Amino acid sequence: MRIARFSTGDEPRYGIVQGVPDTETTPSGDCDGHLLVLRGDPLFSLPEATGEVVELRDARLLSPVIPRSKVVGVGSNYREHALEMGQPGPPETPVVFLKPNTSVIGPDVPVVLPGWTSEVSYEAELAVVVRTLAKDVSVQDVPDVVLGYTVANDVTARDCQRTEPQWVRAKGFDTSCPLGPWIEVPEPGREPAFDPADTVVRARVDGVLVQEGRTRDMVRSIAELVSYVSTVFTLLPGDVVLTGTPAGVGEIRAGQRVEVEVEGIGSFSNPVVRR
Amino acid sequence: MRIARFSTGDEPRYGIVQGVPDTETTPSGDCDGHLLVLRGDPLFSLPEATGEVVELRDARLLSPVIPRSKVVGVGSNYREHALEMGQPGPPETPVVFLKPNTSVIGPDVPVVLPGWTSEVSYEAELAVVVRTLAKDVSVQDVPDVVLGYTVANDVTARDCQRTEPQWVRAKGFDTSCPLGPWIEVPEPGREPAFDPADTVVRARVDGVLVQEGRTRDMVRSIAELVSYVSTVFTLLPGDVVLTGTPAGVGEIRAGQRVEVEVEGIGSFSNPVVRR
Repeated sequence: MRIARFSTGDEPRYGIVQGVPDTETTPSGDCDGHLLVLRGDPLFSLPEATGEVVELRDARLLSPVIPRSKVVGVGSNYREHALEMGQPGPPETPVVFLKPNTSVIGPDVPVVLPGWTSEVSYEAELAVVVRTLAKDVSVQDVPDVVLGYTVANDVTARDCQRTEPQWVRAKGFDTSCPLGPWIEVPEPGREPAFDPADTVVRARVDGVLVQEGRTRDMVRSIAELVSYVSTVFTLLPGDVVLTGTPAGVGEIRAGQRVEVEVEGIGSFSNPVVRR
Repeated sequence: MRIARFSTGDEPRYGIVQGVPDTETTPSGDCDGHLLVLRGDPLFSLPEATGEVVELRDARLLSPVIPRSKVVGVGSNYREHALEMGQPGPPETPVVFLKPNTSVIGPDVPVVLPGWTSEVSYEAELAVVVRTLAKDVSVQDVPDVVLGYTVANDVTARDCQRTEPQWVRAKGFDTSCPLGPWIEVPEPGREPAFDPADTVVRARVDGVLVQEGRTRDMVRSIAELVSYVSTVFTLLPGDVVLTGTPAGVGEIRAGQRVEVEVEGIGSFSNPVVRR
């Protein structure tokens, strides 16, 4: 089940996405998908349809979640990416970082390059949306605390990341965490729409494929990451855990459009502008 | 004006603290201070008294604010502290870090030492509470975006801070950000209760003074810090900016009680326990 957060010009609402073929992950203007509008926030209540249907082409998709607390990122979780970043290999202890909820934007909202950086990179990632309060969760119990999966772009000011000891400025600035297009929510008793542990993560710049990796190449599994993060702090409903980016990161410049995709979830893109 | 967040066993409420002499900053059981109960949340509405009065001794003070987005910390903002941490001096660019809102606790709530650290330190700090949405604020305009000042303990797992490149685990764990006892809110046209730029910051462990410094020894002023932080990301109402700790940090152990104080605001303490 795909749950989207959307607007038709008024307050954000939630809806179940239907009619978008798995092969067509970017709903375009002529897409005939639609949204079954839901009552309330599915993070805090069981999805209940209002009966209203909105055509996808008439809706603006928003970030599928605004975390109440935090977006947690994990550095160097793909061996080849650790190597391309000049490290000898993945770290022994996961390197955890935070992106504040003020960094989150949705599809089509511009990524704004701050004036204090001259080198900003895309990082396509599979993202986990937390369903329930979670602390010290065992690897086995992680599925119980996960609502579903979405797609993230862990936008990073690479020059700052190199020169500053803490990554807060490099990874925490406004618009540095595009999330979308919706949350793929596994349904009990139904065949999963995709396998998060073996899918493809991609980035495109102006339509050209620039990054591609498989989640099976993660150093630590999704469940290991969420379990570890839950030993560091309490996760709240709507918190997001990013699972690292594969090799192939590179620069984005003002005037370009950057797209991120996870096969089985979907894709979305953002224009890049400079302030 | 001192605005506290408190509970008398029910929902958190806000009140104006009266009757606590400036010399008695820790309201004890026999304190005859009281709270003028307010309607709503003073961050989002003008303070309006309900007429109800609650004796301080009958109230439990809570963290005066739970940030909607983030607590922003700044490393090495006192020269002597930078030296005691083995650095040649303060950094050229402020070192910014984040503590998630899940790390915030109020007075008397236990600081819980996580199982994965064997060396945890107190850090007494003056904290700034943000009043309004703020981005790229000039140093001169900072007073316009500040609601007031409170006292923080930037509890830090020192061993993790030394061995891990990112400080997220060292400084972001649950209970690592005690805030209290209330917010000292400057009132236009009234003599300020204290000068944040020249006051005394202290920590005590089991009643023994262990840390004392003056805010006039900050490397960067409060306004410079808030201005800088607002170039990194948008600050939201209720966000908190910590201003660094003076020299004299040291360990806290289970069974102890750690108190932090800023002269002109007040003090509060927390018991320390181990899970």
